[in-house]
Amino acid sequence: MQGNNSLRLWAGVSAVAIVAVAAAIMAPAAIAEEVKTSKSVEWEDILNDEKTTGDVVHWGMGIRNHRYSELTQVNDSNVKNMKAVWSFSFGDEKQRGQETQALVHDGVIYVTASYSRAFALDAKTGKKLWSYQARLPDDIRPCCDVVNRGGALYKNLFFMGTLDAGMVALDKNTGKVVWKEKFGDHTAGYTMTGAPSIVKDQKTGKVLLIHGSSGDEFGVVGQLFARDPMTGEEIWMRPFVEGHMGRLNGEASSHTGDPKAPSWPNKKDGSKREAWNHGGGAPWQTATFDVKTNTIVVGTGNPAPWNTWYRSGLDGNWKDYDSLYTSGQAYLEPSTGEMVGFFQHTPNDAWDFSGNNPITLFDMKQPDGSVVRAGAHADRNGYFFVTKLDELTKRDGKISKQAGGAFGIYPFVPDISWATGWDLKTGRPMEVAGQRPPPPAEGEKKGESIKVTPNFLGGTNWMPMAYSQETGLFYIPANHWTEDYWTENVTYKKGAAYLGQGFRIKRQFDTHVGALTAIDPATGKIVWTHKEAMPLWAGALVTKGNLVFTGTSDGYVKAFNAKTGEELWKFQTGSGVVSQPVTWEMDGKQYIGISSGYGGAVPLWGGDMADMTKQVSQGGSFWVFGLPKELASAN
Amino acid sequence: MQGNNSLRLWAGVSAVAIVAVAAAIMAPAAIAEEVKTSKSVEWEDILNDEKTTGDVVHWGMGIRNHRYSELTQVNDSNVKNMKAVWSFSFGDEKQRGQETQALVHDGVIYVTASYSRAFALDAKTGKKLWSYQARLPDDIRPCCDVVNRGGALYKNLFFMGTLDAGMVALDKNTGKVVWKEKFGDHTAGYTMTGAPSIVKDQKTGKVLLIHGSSGDEFGVVGQLFARDPMTGEEIWMRPFVEGHMGRLNGEASSHTGDPKAPSWPNKKDGSKREAWNHGGGAPWQTATFDVKTNTIVVGTGNPAPWNTWYRSGLDGNWKDYDSLYTSGQAYLEPSTGEMVGFFQHTPNDAWDFSGNNPITLFDMKQPDGSVVRAGAHADRNGYFFVTKLDELTKRDGKISKQAGGAFGIYPFVPDISWATGWDLKTGRPMEVAGQRPPPPAEGEKKGESIKVTPNFLGGTNWMPMAYSQETGLFYIPANHWTEDYWTENVTYKKGAAYLGQGFRIKRQFDTHVGALTAIDPATGKIVWTHKEAMPLWAGALVTKGNLVFTGTSDGYVKAFNAKTGEELWKFQTGSGVVSQPVTWEMDGKQYIGISSGYGGAVPLWGGDMADMTKQVSQGGSFWVFGLPKELASAN
Repeated sequence: MQGNNSLRLWAGVSAVAIVAVAAAIMAPAAIAEEVKTSKSVEWEDILNDEKTTGDVVHWGMGIRNHRYSELTQVNDSNVKNMKAVWSFSFGDEKQRGQETQALVHDGVIYVTASYSRAFALDAKTGKKLWSYQARLPDDIRPCCDVVNRGGALYKNLFFMGTLDAGMVALDKNTGKVVWKEKFGDHTAGYTMTGAPSIVKDQKTGKVLLIHGSSGDEFGVVGQLFARDPMTGEEIWMRPFVEGHMGRLNGEASSHTGDPKAPSWPNKKDGSKREAWNHGGGAPWQTATFDVKTNTIVVGTGNPAPWNTWYRSGLDGNWKDYDSLYTSGQAYLEPSTGEMVGFFQHTPNDAWDFSGNNPITLFDMKQPDGSVVRAGAHADRNGYFFVTKLDELTKRDGKISKQAGGAFGIYPFVPDISWATGWDLKTGRPMEVAGQRPPPPAEGEKKGESIKVTPNFLGGTNWMPMAYSQETGLFYIPANHWTEDYWTENVTYKKGAAYLGQGFRIKRQFDTHVGALTAIDPATGKIVWTHKEAMPLWAGALVTKGNLVFTGTSDGYVKAFNAKTGEELWKFQTGSGVVSQPVTWEMDGKQYIGISSGYGGAVPLWGGDMADMTKQVSQGGSFWVFGLPKELASAN
Repeated sequence: MQGNNSLRLWAGVSAVAIVAVAAAIMAPAAIAEEVKTSKSVEWEDILNDEKTTGDVVHWGMGIRNHRYSELTQVNDSNVKNMKAVWSFSFGDEKQRGQETQALVHDGVIYVTASYSRAFALDAKTGKKLWSYQARLPDDIRPCCDVVNRGGALYKNLFFMGTLDAGMVALDKNTGKVVWKEKFGDHTAGYTMTGAPSIVKDQKTGKVLLIHGSSGDEFGVVGQLFARDPMTGEEIWMRPFVEGHMGRLNGEASSHTGDPKAPSWPNKKDGSKREAWNHGGGAPWQTATFDVKTNTIVVGTGNPAPWNTWYRSGLDGNWKDYDSLYTSGQAYLEPSTGEMVGFFQHTPNDAWDFSGNNPITLFDMKQPDGSVVRAGAHADRNGYFFVTKLDELTKRDGKISKQAGGAFGIYPFVPDISWATGWDLKTGRPMEVAGQRPPPPAEGEKKGESIKVTPNFLGGTNWMPMAYSQETGLFYIPANHWTEDYWTENVTYKKGAAYLGQGFRIKRQFDTHVGALTAIDPATGKIVWTHKEAMPLWAGALVTKGNLVFTGTSDGYVKAFNAKTGEELWKFQTGSGVVSQPVTWEMDGKQYIGISSGYGGAVPLWGGDMADMTKQVSQGGSFWVFGLPKELASAN
């Protein structure tokens, strides 16, 4: 509605303006935009991003996604004095969800925005150096708002996904398109919202641009891609539905797992049931990278359709059909795109729990003092997975490493209803009977409604948690909510929603929805929880200054004591904050950068939550905060 | 284009969302918006607005439009430490020009926004209390962007004009519409962008809501209205084209001036030439009020069409046809709407100089030490008019008070080309020959192009200046620019632009366009000028703390030393600032409030300037600034 109205108004405005323009002789702009040439970004810069405090050159603030900074200038004593330094408006009468993470390099901030836009800003002043806006066709199908979650930098290029299932490389000094590759049919539902990542294949020495696809709600087959970052040329593609064929150097490479796909049921004639052709598993968030074992690690999306019975045996048997390789964490060889390991978070996922939130790779100190290599993932299904990195990266010819693959699997939200816990030996959940929404009774279109906790928006959703190398804790932007859930009949139709499920998101508690949760990965102990009235939909950042930063749906950027969860500072940005904070140092001063702009899945899908957040204004701006010189010392 | 794209994307987004919504059972919002009941606004509050520092209950920060505050907590010593306190996003994927002035009362900020929107915000936190958005038809015709310049408060109501030629009263505690009156045919070009004002007729004791109309570029007849604020009922209407009929209590009242309209030429048959029927003069800015003489004072717009020859004798004689009562300042009796005085700024205006910028009423200390009652107006034509308030308000049966009506008329921009100065005795300009764009030669469609300084965007345009009761100076947001100007043939067609003129706005100097100018009204001396690279399009505010505040097209809110013009502070808001700053005190702290969001006439009409400002992002937000407690003392 809004869009239409503004179009027509603009037409009205033009009525007179056209007279002026038509009468005018066009002259060159009197003040050209300044071209600022910044340093090339090398692999070493990316590899060291975790340690270098003067820049943020990779999503996750490093290829392991720690979102941790050694900076201490802004700390638990003085953060209360932090102030806004500047703000930048994304403009163009485009707002909606701003879920991005900015990159910062050589005095320039690179930030993406809704509707597949990108901006380069002078980090000191906020002055726009260039902007880019993808020309999006009318028939794109983003399931969950027109968001973009960030870009990547390498050499002189800035990379980002576009909603029309494209990946684009821009000259980072000018914003001009260097290459653009379309990776899927956007009319079938393929799209791209996640940030790409950069890895260096330790075997070949080749640097690769890794990116996934989105679209599970439309029944796509999720795919991960490796490209030559300089040319955009595809090196390999890996589909995440068991038995589908991968691609290497433009040719068929290998099936994903067993070519017969035994985790997907057959029809009576022995051919696969429909769902297998459209099985989802899209890796729509950002891959992390284990340099030691030369392994790409990525979360895979929900199976399609959501309705479990379409992915079960004709007799209703779901236990033998895990819908591999959906809703789990996948480990891949960068040279070939072969899958070398997989750990599933939700076997035969009946709830759209998906498994995409990035797997954070870290060295975990165990209660006995030993240090082990681990992967951490907080899932929509309410469990926090601490997996064995050395097991899952092992090239032993066996993909599934469910049995014995995890150090621990712990609930991080209360009253999980679909499982009572996990058997670490088998690596399988102890599922609660009756929590799979039952199929419609004969002659009915809808099944009986049941209550499931957490709901499909998740214990946590896409918003990345942070890991403190100082406290050893993870900080999960979690939510406490539940839902009513029922099945519906569905048949695949290209470009249409392929869910087979209906739902209403509901409150779990009167007091709050959002729950920033600090958890000890070695024990699963929840150290503290900070509650928010509205849903939390922003990522977290943690610093050695004992601070956790995140944003809230009611417009605040906030800082918390990392050890205690005490709220120490907040600033009202005027629209909901659902993006990812970063921090860096420039000219001896520490800054925090974050986008503001409400949107994403909650207002579109969120039932009671959509109603609650209707009062939140849309926005679209980037903010930089810092300590005034005079207030940098404590108190 | 933008609007269309976003509409379609939204449709795409909805594809899935609709499934969710359709499947959902609607439930009431879990958290309702808070209703905050604030004190009633009385006439005394408005009358005293100039002096009360705890609120801003009228446009102009008082009915005399001084835009001056006695507050000194933020001052020339400590303003460098001022920081952003909070920001609010207007949202809705609507941006474009934000030219508004906020009102502040009893802890609530009332601010209008582009596309005829209004918001009530908690002044402490920025939390939205309510919002209102006019349902605008598709065929509105705002000449110069979808701006709104502010509202008015009285009793429990908040008033604002709408782009579809309406005036609406909202319950100020809930935002619900109490009444809405349409005052003109928006398809003919009538619209409303200015803030209404509140006056109390000293004769009858009746409080009136005064508002004008816009639309001169479409050939409307400009009208001023008085309404009962509580019901919206029209009390009187005064047209500003000589000889047109006014209205009082629903009946024809009196002609405006001479019924024969001798200042408009006749055809050979003795009837009026076409222009008289569509003569413009719209009072599209806000009226001020002289309590002592019980007189409403308002600027009137340009004559229509712009082309002088359509408003001159058939022999090309313009000297005898002043196009009354356009491009001047009008004085009206509040009981009846009768015009009691008029001073024209540009007789037979051939340049769209208009005369709308509000007339600031003040007590002027003359060089000899005597104090006189005066009106001050900075005009697009480059002259600063200091008029005699007691003369112009005199009920002597004579409307035109041109002869001897001014204390002084001074240039405030350099190289004015259309006149060399003014004869104060006659009250007429010494016009330069050849500066009226000549008519097309026989058989041609366009006349020869000539260069005119300043251009029609003006030495200053709509953006209100400020008057310091402390320094005695006026602070004019001025611009230094020129234009190429030529005539074109035109015939009135309802709803179409009625200009008869073409143009291209051009640079005057390589160094700058904007020029914040401090001028002494008693001598016309320019005390200082602060230059800005880009056009200045924001209003000014001055405080006893020796500070002048304004905004810049490149996104800054700035503070200057009121005595010297030294720039003391700036903050980057991310979009061009073209609105009107206000200041108030709350809980012992002084705050500055201003909207950010680029748009208005410059990017639509501005030729070279539109090119220059293309780099400015659109926006739409309100900002509050203040001194951190720790930094409130100097240094």
